[in-house]
Amino acid sequence: MSTALDAALAHADAHLDDSVARLKTLVAIKSISTDPAYTGEVHRAADWLAADLNALGFEASVRPTPGHPMVVAHDQTADGPHVLFYAHYDVQPVDPLNLWATDPFAATLVKGEDGETRIVGRGSSDDKGQLLTFVEACRAWKAVNGALPIKVTLFFEGEEESGGKSLPGFLEANKAELGSADIALVCDTDLWNRETPSIVTSLRGLVGEEVVITCASHDLHSGMYGNAARNPIQVLADIIASLRNSDGSVAVEGFYDDVAELPAEIAAQWKRLPYDEAAFMRGAGLTTPAGEQGRSVLEQTRSRPTCEINGISGGYTGDGFKTVIPAKASAKISFRLVSGMDPKKIRAAFRKHVTDRLPPDATASFHEHGGAPAVSVPTDGPFVAKAAAALKDEWGNEAALIGSGGSIPVAGEFKKTLGLDTLLIGFALDDDRIHSPNEKYDLRSFHKGIRSWLRIIAGFAG
Amino acid sequence: MSTALDAALAHADAHLDDSVARLKTLVAIKSISTDPAYTGEVHRAADWLAADLNALGFEASVRPTPGHPMVVAHDQTADGPHVLFYAHYDVQPVDPLNLWATDPFAATLVKGEDGETRIVGRGSSDDKGQLLTFVEACRAWKAVNGALPIKVTLFFEGEEESGGKSLPGFLEANKAELGSADIALVCDTDLWNRETPSIVTSLRGLVGEEVVITCASHDLHSGMYGNAARNPIQVLADIIASLRNSDGSVAVEGFYDDVAELPAEIAAQWKRLPYDEAAFMRGAGLTTPAGEQGRSVLEQTRSRPTCEINGISGGYTGDGFKTVIPAKASAKISFRLVSGMDPKKIRAAFRKHVTDRLPPDATASFHEHGGAPAVSVPTDGPFVAKAAAALKDEWGNEAALIGSGGSIPVAGEFKKTLGLDTLLIGFALDDDRIHSPNEKYDLRSFHKGIRSWLRIIAGFAG
Repeated sequence: MSTALDAALAHADAHLDDSVARLKTLVAIKSISTDPAYTGEVHRAADWLAADLNALGFEASVRPTPGHPMVVAHDQTADGPHVLFYAHYDVQPVDPLNLWATDPFAATLVKGEDGETRIVGRGSSDDKGQLLTFVEACRAWKAVNGALPIKVTLFFEGEEESGGKSLPGFLEANKAELGSADIALVCDTDLWNRETPSIVTSLRGLVGEEVVITCASHDLHSGMYGNAARNPIQVLADIIASLRNSDGSVAVEGFYDDVAELPAEIAAQWKRLPYDEAAFMRGAGLTTPAGEQGRSVLEQTRSRPTCEINGISGGYTGDGFKTVIPAKASAKISFRLVSGMDPKKIRAAFRKHVTDRLPPDATASFHEHGGAPAVSVPTDGPFVAKAAAALKDEWGNEAALIGSGGSIPVAGEFKKTLGLDTLLIGFALDDDRIHSPNEKYDLRSFHKGIRSWLRIIAGFAG
Repeated sequence: MSTALDAALAHADAHLDDSVARLKTLVAIKSISTDPAYTGEVHRAADWLAADLNALGFEASVRPTPGHPMVVAHDQTADGPHVLFYAHYDVQPVDPLNLWATDPFAATLVKGEDGETRIVGRGSSDDKGQLLTFVEACRAWKAVNGALPIKVTLFFEGEEESGGKSLPGFLEANKAELGSADIALVCDTDLWNRETPSIVTSLRGLVGEEVVITCASHDLHSGMYGNAARNPIQVLADIIASLRNSDGSVAVEGFYDDVAELPAEIAAQWKRLPYDEAAFMRGAGLTTPAGEQGRSVLEQTRSRPTCEINGISGGYTGDGFKTVIPAKASAKISFRLVSGMDPKKIRAAFRKHVTDRLPPDATASFHEHGGAPAVSVPTDGPFVAKAAAALKDEWGNEAALIGSGGSIPVAGEFKKTLGLDTLLIGFALDDDRIHSPNEKYDLRSFHKGIRSWLRIIAGFAG
């Protein structure tokens, strides 16, 4: 196996430029799943992937859903174990466009101040770059060895960034086809640091809510109604202010009731990990952790729940000034959940928190934007051990087994519907500016990501 | 004089359709002064007015300013006293456009549920309809009597809805030309009710502020930074929540220090006025006054200061959901001031209120959007008495001498720079939805407004 692996690694190295060219092609497709204006582009990305995989010898197809399509591809000629590899091909919106230094859809290689070459573009990291690390690994293996040494099913989602509503139904409807794998692999997470790989062992869950506060029947003139008319922006601000205590904790009643503390041995491992809190904060231009006092930044961002206001809008927001008292104001609010918390319970507690605080003449309406519990991944078993060994071979350092602050609902769904455990292995960095202008993926992440998967494939086969 | 007046009134009645047609033409010009995209339309409105007035025998011209132009027109052949009539030809933005039942720029006659015919369109009431009441009165008088019986200077502003920055300098530069009048007339206020005219004796002042809260150096992903990163929407909401006490009063330190209480005799007169608080609130779909407890709605809206949030914006506000922690959030906030309050002092107190409450990693920047003190108008003198008598002749009821909740900075500027007292007489109604979708002016307001000015012109001449 080591000859086959070495040949595949050498091929991947020699053809890295071709791999980057394919990533550029995929980034150029504007597959923004949350904005209906880009639905055609989302479909185009799915079509492109399926065509590429068919050319590579997979049996690939684009599968319709009530939302955006899934791409499923099989190569199951090998005797080895069967992996289900998941990534998503949709991306976040690119606004504010004026903050991008380069065209977000023209992936551009830029030399960073740290000497690293960066691939800058929307989705270069999250998740098109990560998706292609595995595809390019398969391509390199097949190019030099003819056939893969393990059974592979590829499964690519097109609405991960927009609630992923179609996923549970699709898994349920295709349980036999997708659930025959032995283990799931998900590539949508970070390295621990530039030198240290990681296997993510927990993911925060998510509850997304939009709340609209309505007061008057129409927009009013503040010269005429100012003082007397209930102002929905004021009401919304009062409610948002009431969501956090002065010690940084979330003030929704019962919010922490079911929160599981980190197991002692994991907490101890986190304390040992090389981690520079100040550098992490500085990466965002910040100095002072804003969450629960007495909790480390690692805890605040990875093992503690949070409530964030993701958007707010009301009244006149154009150029100049308009002395209006608007009829409505709205906010998009999300909760990140940790192990033990029930999304339904948190959503209900939030809605009660809001409605309990409505003054006279104010009403609230709520719109659900996705919900998923936190996920914990087992840290023992042969696949974890083999993946960790393969990662150590590639990076030189032991893989960190660490919780992630993000939410990747698919891992929970794989367990619930397909009965599959998931290994979350990714090569992004926390300065990749995912979801922000100037998103980038280090060329090194892309290259060593491909190499890492080759080693893991060989490890699983061996 | 009464024959001349009767003839002019009859002519105005007989040619009302022509007057409405001219209002339609003026409404069709999209003179939104706050939005730079409409600068050409603002100029077009000024040009149209000057051309119409020249055709009517005025010596009219469009006068450039650093902002939008003024229109000045003279007809000073008469021996009688000299009035300076002011109105504004610019209008508010029309968004949200989808809430308009008709095209905002195609003034449409609609029969209301109350049997009144309404002229629906942006500016039909504020202030194009009111502006034309006086022009149409002059037209009717001249049509039947040849020459006006008093000296008239017309003065029309094009940036009243966008801060009116050019006004003070223009008055200063044209003091001799404009200050030679004996009294100023301003038509930008309401009737007391459908049957009762009013002369406004006080106006609230205004301080407009935009505050931008900045935290991180760029937008962040809430899965990665949630909890640890200071969220500027949360900071802004906390600050807005702190602006009001639970009793409805404004919480900015020193806010009420210089507030003058209503003189006892005026307060007593207000109590006698026919006024239905519940109906006023119901007109906006509301039931419960939101301002200072223990103060009547009349006081809250006309003789007490207020703080209103006119707009708020931050993070992702498009369709769908984006789990972003934005770098910035902003709000447009205005204060309505009453007699005694200093705009500079209030602006400084507000800014101190905000900066005193900034948590670590949050900064605030401020942008000034206009400021003017409250204005009080003398309630004695021959012009007030003659105007009140003329209004009683037209409406049958005594004119109410009442404070207005709105801000009309020009009255203060006329006093300060030209040494002129101002009579504020207007024919709008509090259900005119000015600044809102479906703004309207009752045809009756327009018609009896023209007739009222004819009687006032005759009264001043007699």
